[in-house]
Amino acid sequence: MAGNTFGKLFRVTTAGVSHGPGYLCIIDGCPAGLPLSVDDLLPDLLRRKPGQSKLTTQRDEADTPEIWSGVFEGKTDGTPIGISFRNQDQRSKDYGDIAEKYRPGHADFTFDAKYGFRDYRGGGRSSARETICRVAAGAVAKKLLMRAGIRILGYVSQVGNIRAEVSDPTTVTLEQVEATPVRCPIPEKAAEMIALIDSVRLDCDSIGGVSELVAVGVPPGLGEPVFDKLKADLAKAMLSLPAVMGFEYGAGFRVAQMRGSENNDVFLPPPPHIHTATNRHGGMLGGISSGEPIVCRVAIKPTSSIPRSQQTVTRTGEPTEILVRGRHDPCLLPRFIPMGEAMMALVIVDHWLRWKAGQPMTDT
Amino acid sequence: MAGNTFGKLFRVTTAGVSHGPGYLCIIDGCPAGLPLSVDDLLPDLLRRKPGQSKLTTQRDEADTPEIWSGVFEGKTDGTPIGISFRNQDQRSKDYGDIAEKYRPGHADFTFDAKYGFRDYRGGGRSSARETICRVAAGAVAKKLLMRAGIRILGYVSQVGNIRAEVSDPTTVTLEQVEATPVRCPIPEKAAEMIALIDSVRLDCDSIGGVSELVAVGVPPGLGEPVFDKLKADLAKAMLSLPAVMGFEYGAGFRVAQMRGSENNDVFLPPPPHIHTATNRHGGMLGGISSGEPIVCRVAIKPTSSIPRSQQTVTRTGEPTEILVRGRHDPCLLPRFIPMGEAMMALVIVDHWLRWKAGQPMTDT
Amino acid sequence: MAGNTFGKLFRVTTAGVSHGPGYLCIIDGCPAGLPLSVDDLLPDLLRRKPGQSKLTTQRDEADTPEIWSGVFEGKTDGTPIGISFRNQDQRSKDYGDIAEKYRPGHADFTFDAKYGFRDYRGGGRSSARETICRVAAGAVAKKLLMRAGIRILGYVSQVGNIRAEVSDPTTVTLEQVEATPVRCPIPEKAAEMIALIDSVRLDCDSIGGVSELVAVGVPPGLGEPVFDKLKADLAKAMLSLPAVMGFEYGAGFRVAQMRGSENNDVFLPPPPHIHTATNRHGGMLGGISSGEPIVCRVAIKPTSSIPRSQQTVTRTGEPTEILVRGRHDPCLLPRFIPMGEAMMALVIVDHWLRWKAGQPMTDT
Amino acid sequence: MAGNTFGKLFRVTTAGVSHGPGYLCIIDGCPAGLPLSVDDLLPDLLRRKPGQSKLTTQRDEADTPEIWSGVFEGKTDGTPIGISFRNQDQRSKDYGDIAEKYRPGHADFTFDAKYGFRDYRGGGRSSARETICRVAAGAVAKKLLMRAGIRILGYVSQVGNIRAEVSDPTTVTLEQVEATPVRCPIPEKAAEMIALIDSVRLDCDSIGGVSELVAVGVPPGLGEPVFDKLKADLAKAMLSLPAVMGFEYGAGFRVAQMRGSENNDVFLPPPPHIHTATNRHGGMLGGISSGEPIVCRVAIKPTSSIPRSQQTVTRTGEPTEILVRGRHDPCLLPRFIPMGEAMMALVIVDHWLRWKAGQPMTDT
Repeated sequence: MAGNTFGKLFRVTTAGVSHGPGYLCIIDGCPAGLPLSVDDLLPDLLRRKPGQSKLTTQRDEADTPEIWSGVFEGKTDGTPIGISFRNQDQRSKDYGDIAEKYRPGHADFTFDAKYGFRDYRGGGRSSARETICRVAAGAVAKKLLMRAGIRILGYVSQVGNIRAEVSDPTTVTLEQVEATPVRCPIPEKAAEMIALIDSVRLDCDSIGGVSELVAVGVPPGLGEPVFDKLKADLAKAMLSLPAVMGFEYGAGFRVAQMRGSENNDVFLPPPPHIHTATNRHGGMLGGISSGEPIVCRVAIKPTSSIPRSQQTVTRTGEPTEILVRGRHDPCLLPRFIPMGEAMMALVIVDHWLRWKAGQPMTDT
Repeated sequence: MAGNTFGKLFRVTTAGVSHGPGYLCIIDGCPAGLPLSVDDLLPDLLRRKPGQSKLTTQRDEADTPEIWSGVFEGKTDGTPIGISFRNQDQRSKDYGDIAEKYRPGHADFTFDAKYGFRDYRGGGRSSARETICRVAAGAVAKKLLMRAGIRILGYVSQVGNIRAEVSDPTTVTLEQVEATPVRCPIPEKAAEMIALIDSVRLDCDSIGGVSELVAVGVPPGLGEPVFDKLKADLAKAMLSLPAVMGFEYGAGFRVAQMRGSENNDVFLPPPPHIHTATNRHGGMLGGISSGEPIVCRVAIKPTSSIPRSQQTVTRTGEPTEILVRGRHDPCLLPRFIPMGEAMMALVIVDHWLRWKAGQPMTDT
Repeated sequence: MAGNTFGKLFRVTTAGVSHGPGYLCIIDGCPAGLPLSVDDLLPDLLRRKPGQSKLTTQRDEADTPEIWSGVFEGKTDGTPIGISFRNQDQRSKDYGDIAEKYRPGHADFTFDAKYGFRDYRGGGRSSARETICRVAAGAVAKKLLMRAGIRILGYVSQVGNIRAEVSDPTTVTLEQVEATPVRCPIPEKAAEMIALIDSVRLDCDSIGGVSELVAVGVPPGLGEPVFDKLKADLAKAMLSLPAVMGFEYGAGFRVAQMRGSENNDVFLPPPPHIHTATNRHGGMLGGISSGEPIVCRVAIKPTSSIPRSQQTVTRTGEPTEILVRGRHDPCLLPRFIPMGEAMMALVIVDHWLRWKAGQPMTDT
Repeated sequence: MAGNTFGKLFRVTTAGVSHGPGYLCIIDGCPAGLPLSVDDLLPDLLRRKPGQSKLTTQRDEADTPEIWSGVFEGKTDGTPIGISFRNQDQRSKDYGDIAEKYRPGHADFTFDAKYGFRDYRGGGRSSARETICRVAAGAVAKKLLMRAGIRILGYVSQVGNIRAEVSDPTTVTLEQVEATPVRCPIPEKAAEMIALIDSVRLDCDSIGGVSELVAVGVPPGLGEPVFDKLKADLAKAMLSLPAVMGFEYGAGFRVAQMRGSENNDVFLPPPPHIHTATNRHGGMLGGISSGEPIVCRVAIKPTSSIPRSQQTVTRTGEPTEILVRGRHDPCLLPRFIPMGEAMMALVIVDHWLRWKAGQPMTDT
């Protein structure tokens, strides 16, 4: 009820803070028989890791997972998968000031209000490092989805005022995304974004952006018609990530200016099967997957921690200034990609298991 | 697991389709002692009702609730509140065609894919009429929140390309919202919106828009730090409503173009208490309420049912055309307002109860 | 969270009290395609109904269900099944005294303590009439289980000191159970039980007993290894019924006096498949079904309402006497059978759906 | 959904098997501000530990917990408490045979049936070592309950045919329970039990028993009236423990032979408050706590692993014999006590938090 579990059939529970001993993650509900090892987790963990490039924080974190359970002789055995991550680089001194002063844009104030006190050595439970568990769990989900023919991919589609519009999201490859440190698959736009982030960084500031996330191969029928619409669970998943300020799918906010005759996607006959001519519905109708690619976008705010003095107050309400020390991403977008993919994978794998349980009775 | 329940401590479960006998709604977890009668449900049900004005469908529905349980001698008694709504105006003949043809933008195709067949007499479980239960439950939630000093209000902020920017959402009154049938609190913008909707209707088309929703008086500390962030649960709640294509809060998608130095809200000292100078964080930091007003916006697509012939396919995959009959809203926004308010109230009341359960231990 | 929902994948939510307008029941998660009508619910509802024989209360209740949703053209359609029952025979005058005095053995006192007040017209939410929803939902579950080759049956195995030991529970038929009003399948024991209940009734008293419940055809593999053991969920289901004071399965409490060498059931080879020579494990090993019949027993207390004056206190704590009026079962066992079967069916159908969702990945 | 989480507001999630790297446990929902350290966990972990006396297995296990999160500056901080236990004494060679043969009374066969294969190095997820996480979580729950004035205690009340009837369960002290290795508070009975267990052990056999568990100080009003009755959740909690074959509370199975006039507990006036003259209702009426001590009993089977050759089959269904090696408890009762207490504490703390959230609205 304190909200540290995600999912209904494929359930992820996490614990840990950035400046304590480390993180624990328990994945419950992964079917038996899936080949799995630490090597399956590492690629996405590396994509999430700080210090990958000058676009991201230079902080070095210990991101090596230990699998405690749930895998036997190289395959999942149906019992819960326990994973831990030790913290190492705990430069608490860098953060000293935040024990007494509220960082603008951070959760320091709201944590104090909620719990009466907080772990002031870092972001505590609201640290972005918490996503390490999600990315590990997402890697398991992705592998399971691959067995069902479902592929998840995210990329950066906007940084500041530089927009990279991908015409056909289904053709983007992981290689294209990983080709540049900014994770935008259109090379010229990627270059502009990199230049912008660099200039923002030199300006002791940060910049926001948008990520687009795509799932290809989702069969029609996933999602529930009322409260647990697939779009609703994706929205929750994305907004549960730090710094996410908005979610849209398909035509998204553009629908506000559209007419029904423009926005409706007409159905076309097979081959190979009934499909739509266009995908303004982002692969979901009535909250249920249509078989078209699922496409959504999330808005991510500029990093709140900027190396500038900012006006604020102390815990006791005295006006003051704060200079947040430490190394922070000038732009969160590049490292967001594996996090967004992980959450998308967790939602879809959960609905895929629900879909298996809910198959109609056939006449016998 | 089939997703017909919403909430954890204040739980709403619904059943029913538009062309069956009616709807059932069970509200579980409402504390005992709240004065409640049918009269408390009627105002929002009337706001949701079709046929209120020429801006909405002229269909007449029977929206009178019957309370079966949970209220004794004028007060909630702690047991589940059961409510039913009878359907009356079941003009199934109007919908005849949709048994065999897929309406563009509707869930007919995805329902068939999911369940093997569907109630073809109307939208079935994906009919907008399903929201009648949510609005009734939301009215109970709102009344409970009023006791906690929390007030929920929504209004239309965009229809097509007409935008009505409210400078201070906390000053908008219910009277201002209800002053025009379009539920936009800025009179001149309301007039423009009404004219646009009217012209779209005469054009046999429909138009989308944006609604802004505000909660005032939410104390700091509601929401959980990881998966059940308040923003995440609000996003899910909104995306669980039909036709909603996007959600944002605070600065929303505008953050993509902002710098940290622009976007951060600085903290100011009391009086009366620690607060922020601006509210680009939409009343939530780290997914937890900050005490500032909670402000979010949702994008709503143009009604999919338009009185025009559209290209589509039959259930067996033959190309055909469909002319969706019946009376439909040319713009969903006016009737969306009570639905959006209801979902916002359900999320906040749920977190308010969780907050009560989770109060820190005090030294004794 | 107020506990009016049972099940995870096959979820039953109920509302209603004995002296209000009636009861609502929503069954969520029943797969589409199961033939279903009111006629499928009636047989078990009749078995549960008061006034069947002189062994049970002579009160006449209106037990006719109305199905509001979830069934289309004679089959479940995957959407929630809504069912209502109107109350009719509301002889509140019979209960007048209980508004101010606490009935011994009843929940009047605990309800007042919990909610601050209570519906004093009858047992309110703790009335045995609440089980009407469970029996209806159980009938749906049973029908679904029949499709999976699983059959549920209960019977009375003890009333007072009269024990009816069934040597092979799998051979008992519904006809044998229903042959006498006491629902004990051994005719001579049934006659003794009937005589005992009759004498207890004439003595203005009531008597307790034990019911045995059996599920045949459950495949091996249902149930989860740790908290959601099948035995654990069965225990909860049974103890959630009014008047149930104990649960045991297989050898049950007799194990306290047994040695491992006596109690272990040895495995035998096929044909037709690996099985055990004996069934002291009651069809569950490690909380997971073994393929042997699932056999459990529940202890049911003598009806608390007896037509005698009893010592008690008023709401304000004054000592007094109470004579509980109205018509009550002198023995709850006969009418318990359909309730116990319903709860057993709800547990097994839920785990059957979970089992389908959790099937191991096969190599492909 | 795979059932590795227990509780709704105070939630415990566990992972791990007896012969892998170790166990992880995440406790979610513990309020902030409770003083907590490893020292609070150790006493109950020591009581659960193998090798305490000749009555229990001589196996030495590493039961030292590491707290990863959820505690800051000596107090819980409201974030999830992560705990791990490393396995050390992994004598897998002792268990070699069980890879291919099914141990009678164990879950080997049902695990293979469920998952297609299993961790054959030990009991895997069904090993009693799994309870180490429950005992740690229970210690936290107990400490929280102490703050609410609620005390939990268990003891052995029967081993084989030796019964130790405690006349007033509320007067038993922890010291009395811990005075002998068998954990029976009546010294002469304890001596008889010890002698019996010893003789059974020398006989290469095992013996069952009964444990009584008591909660004192529970205020009236905990528990929900329908499915989540306090008695139902206690039953589930106890049956979720390995080897538990039955549960009863208050008069339990004895009610089968009782009349209502004998069984009803009459209410008495204050001082100090309304109470019952007797406690055959075991502290729960209508599934809600009455303020009287909560008293329940559980039946525990004789250890399935006995150092004797037993008839069985191989995984492929060939008849064979098995001699289960390793060191096993000749009687599970002494080590069951901390496990039973832990589960009782987890249920009551969960309902205590629900009770706080569900407090009636007062007129203002």
